[in-house]
Amino acid sequence: MNQESMKPILFTRGNPAEEALPIAEIIDCANTVFQRDGKIVFQYGHYSGYSPLREWLARRYDVKVEQVLLGNGSMEFFTFVGSLMVKPGDTVFLERPSYDRAITAMKRAGARVVGIPLKKDGVDIDRLKAELTTSTPKVFYLIPDFQNPSGVTTSSEKRKELVRLAEEYGFYLVEDAPYRLLRYRGQEAPTLRDLLPDRVIHISSFSKTLSPGMRIGYMILPLTLAPSFHKWSEDTYIHPVLPTEGIVNEYCRKGLLEPNIEKLKNLYRPRLDAILNALRQHLMGATWIEPEGGFFVSVTLPEAIDGHALWKNARDFGIVLTDGRGFFPDGKGENFIRLPFCALKPDEIEEGIRRLTKAIDAHRK
Amino acid sequence: MNQESMKPILFTRGNPAEEALPIAEIIDCANTVFQRDGKIVFQYGHYSGYSPLREWLARRYDVKVEQVLLGNGSMEFFTFVGSLMVKPGDTVFLERPSYDRAITAMKRAGARVVGIPLKKDGVDIDRLKAELTTSTPKVFYLIPDFQNPSGVTTSSEKRKELVRLAEEYGFYLVEDAPYRLLRYRGQEAPTLRDLLPDRVIHISSFSKTLSPGMRIGYMILPLTLAPSFHKWSEDTYIHPVLPTEGIVNEYCRKGLLEPNIEKLKNLYRPRLDAILNALRQHLMGATWIEPEGGFFVSVTLPEAIDGHALWKNARDFGIVLTDGRGFFPDGKGENFIRLPFCALKPDEIEEGIRRLTKAIDAHRK
Repeated sequence: MNQESMKPILFTRGNPAEEALPIAEIIDCANTVFQRDGKIVFQYGHYSGYSPLREWLARRYDVKVEQVLLGNGSMEFFTFVGSLMVKPGDTVFLERPSYDRAITAMKRAGARVVGIPLKKDGVDIDRLKAELTTSTPKVFYLIPDFQNPSGVTTSSEKRKELVRLAEEYGFYLVEDAPYRLLRYRGQEAPTLRDLLPDRVIHISSFSKTLSPGMRIGYMILPLTLAPSFHKWSEDTYIHPVLPTEGIVNEYCRKGLLEPNIEKLKNLYRPRLDAILNALRQHLMGATWIEPEGGFFVSVTLPEAIDGHALWKNARDFGIVLTDGRGFFPDGKGENFIRLPFCALKPDEIEEGIRRLTKAIDAHRK
Repeated sequence: MNQESMKPILFTRGNPAEEALPIAEIIDCANTVFQRDGKIVFQYGHYSGYSPLREWLARRYDVKVEQVLLGNGSMEFFTFVGSLMVKPGDTVFLERPSYDRAITAMKRAGARVVGIPLKKDGVDIDRLKAELTTSTPKVFYLIPDFQNPSGVTTSSEKRKELVRLAEEYGFYLVEDAPYRLLRYRGQEAPTLRDLLPDRVIHISSFSKTLSPGMRIGYMILPLTLAPSFHKWSEDTYIHPVLPTEGIVNEYCRKGLLEPNIEKLKNLYRPRLDAILNALRQHLMGATWIEPEGGFFVSVTLPEAIDGHALWKNARDFGIVLTDGRGFFPDGKGENFIRLPFCALKPDEIEEGIRRLTKAIDAHRK
């Protein structure tokens, strides 16, 4: 293939597959809610978001409506956490590696960001305990299910240990769970919130299960923290965008969410299989965790590869990668490659990993 | 009338009239854009917002597309300005009184907030010059057209003096202009941005001209400042909500915005007349500015009235008011009453001012 004309394969953002967006159903829901509640969703509304959707979520999570805060995507909640719970100089723990945008948000808040190394079943508990002898964080940000970027799911045992330590040392856990419902095989563990609701801020969204463009995130807050978050939200943008919340509410109440999640699992499961097979077949010498769900597999290249040059030159090999350094609070992730697989068809995945292999071979030090 | 059963008249938020929301047209636009561009607006998109709407605004303001940043309502931009341009302890000027939520945002950023007194044609320039001998602000936040809360429009002469001083002293003007297009009579003055584009951050939205529930605000940025704002936006929420931006883009490109603004002017002009007539007829001893557009008239009660008790007891008289103290950075606004008039029909306005008069009479010290 001529490299000039080779269409690049994007291993960059964690986009849902284009064919996964249920656009016809969304349009139906939009028409229903805009016709019935246009005077509500196009007018100023409640500062915590569209009430029927908050009520639906409250029932789903078995919490009070006051504990549910809707927002314009879940990511902005990291900024809320940073502003309300972290003073400049305070310590924040997160997994190492972690979601690059969460690291940025915590650094923006002036936090001292400490990464606790991830193993294949969650953070290294011994390292966590050692770190806790030096400093207690204000919050510990985690993605326990199909972690972004590593794909790791924290085991039940480690979840129990995490909440025990949160209680013993008096810090809050921020549990970011956008991928949780997209489990393609295996058994789910309880959420951190299930285990210790008073010390866990649970964050999720409809970005991976329905539509990211709508930017609908939500927090399930401990009752004691809820008022300050609602007030901060109001003081930030009066209230979140309502018409899209109306659409999602309609979608959920029509019972369309669960079938959509099943459809997504059936679409994404073969893609996960395709990337794992391709990695096993082609990527000798590198290491990765085999996830059971979510959007990401990530590969750590051996030291002998110049990962930074590989990232910069990837387009020459027909692929586009994200800079691995962003996932490490200390920036030391040159040889870490995140591979989002959901938006690529199995043959594109296979071809993409082939190209990655060539790129790796070309970047031996 | 029995006070228990008296439906309160709300002089609180600056809501558009319910009958002003063009819901049928919005639904048409939603169907058009969701069917044509569903795969764009429901997917992850550009961090600065839906490109066709940015391009439409760029042409309207005769700026480069890079100068246009879309957001989830205009109010969050105050937080962006606070985060990017103001360090804790820095000085921010604003009009006294000013928009309560803007004051909150600047205080949240840690700013020293200085209010420059408003006269009927804009801020007191002598006081501004005196203040500038003591401290130079990082930004001066103003609402030059039909100011919230006072209704004041800054004269052309004062606008010229403001940009001259901004240039001389090296501060930025933040021009918040959500009401500008809703002029019911009289001649418009140039925007501050027209006069000095390199030192003016122009902020506006579709909340007053189309729909507040959609929360679509935008900034027109000086080229030099644009990159940092776009990056801040991305680091805050990846990108703003897209489907509603798609609807607004469709609405604007179908040529529906200008006729809607004409319709709004014809709806709101008699309401402005009604409130001014009612004030002239009933409110002896109080003072107010007569605006030529916008959403608000505000009344300053004489010292002999206990305005704080009046605010607290207003419901007993069948009205609901906003605490006037919030509009003053120093909190000294007990006797200041903001009266939003657009969402009330002329007979409700007349009755509301009658009730306000009774409430005032009952609160003489």
